[in-house]
Amino acid sequence: MAADIDFYFDFSSPYGYFASTRIDELAQRYGRRVNWHPVLLGVVFKTSGAQPLTMVPLKGEYSIRDFVRTARFHGIPFNMPPKFPIASVAAARAMLWLQKAVGAQAAVGFAKAVYRAFFVDGIDVGEANSMLRIAAQQGIDTGALAAGIEQPEIKEQLKTEVEQAMLRGVFGSPYIIVDGEPFWGFDRFDQLEALLKNGSI
Amino acid sequence: MAADIDFYFDFSSPYGYFASTRIDELAQRYGRRVNWHPVLLGVVFKTSGAQPLTMVPLKGEYSIRDFVRTARFHGIPFNMPPKFPIASVAAARAMLWLQKAVGAQAAVGFAKAVYRAFFVDGIDVGEANSMLRIAAQQGIDTGALAAGIEQPEIKEQLKTEVEQAMLRGVFGSPYIIVDGEPFWGFDRFDQLEALLKNGSI
Repeated sequence: MAADIDFYFDFSSPYGYFASTRIDELAQRYGRRVNWHPVLLGVVFKTSGAQPLTMVPLKGEYSIRDFVRTARFHGIPFNMPPKFPIASVAAARAMLWLQKAVGAQAAVGFAKAVYRAFFVDGIDVGEANSMLRIAAQQGIDTGALAAGIEQPEIKEQLKTEVEQAMLRGVFGSPYIIVDGEPFWGFDRFDQLEALLKNGSI
Repeated sequence: MAADIDFYFDFSSPYGYFASTRIDELAQRYGRRVNWHPVLLGVVFKTSGAQPLTMVPLKGEYSIRDFVRTARFHGIPFNMPPKFPIASVAAARAMLWLQKAVGAQAAVGFAKAVYRAFFVDGIDVGEANSMLRIAAQQGIDTGALAAGIEQPEIKEQLKTEVEQAMLRGVFGSPYIIVDGEPFWGFDRFDQLEALLKNGSI
């Protein structure tokens, strides 16, 4: 059995969102499974010294234009959220709790719904109540979820997972590792597909 | 007549080199001409706060891997130079002088030879004598060129061109502007081609 694809992303990352709309279908085409790993770029950026794209002089204005154009080019629904970036910690903790308490498939469904709410409907998913409303629409028990994201072991697990991601070299979103090969950015999906197809790149 | 393509690049930029191997042929396919604009990322980075890719924590190691893999993926000859990055100011001034004194075509031939010397043969083209040897191989009068890059008006022109590039939003290399649409990165050549082909994107 071919190894799984590790997919690292931040819920506040537009290119992470673009990747989330394609990664499962791409993996399936080549008989792979995807492990979804929510991370916190805010923590990663403390090490790398990076800033959210839209806050960088000169680059900021371009980056918003690039989000919109890249989405259109690839046929992905997208509206620049009125509030950006947002705190993605509640959604990330929620996903970890769901993976543990409900299962990987429900967690991925939730992640896709959160991304859609943020990058299509402009909802501030960093706000815990908004995030819980999205979970409710996915048929998730929001009482259990609200308690779950406050569990010390879930908070600790997210910290550990972000540290482990950084140890594996993750510095941005999306970041994909498969067969020991790292790919940063939705714009490396052509090279990622070549690896899945040919077994090497 | 369709408008020209403005191609901004730094002689020390691997992705600028990749773009330089494709931009003329791409433009020709859609009846466009290319204006080559050497810029100095060192100056631009003072405004944007960016650093050379290979010097950024976590990102540095990945970026070298990405240079090598991207070159291989696109069939572009590439060897990571032993000295990187380098000062690109002498080559940039040389190109401006050549554009003025000899013509655009000779200047582009020189630029391609400089890029090849750096990113294929590992020659430190930031060193003026190495740069002049490359010019000699292109049949350029190196005495005149050596004097040309010391002219105050050439030095002033490069400063002005870098400032104008930044006013147009240029913050990286390669950076392409055509029909008012900016594209940053060799990995946006698919979107650039769509614009040239369809007239919009």
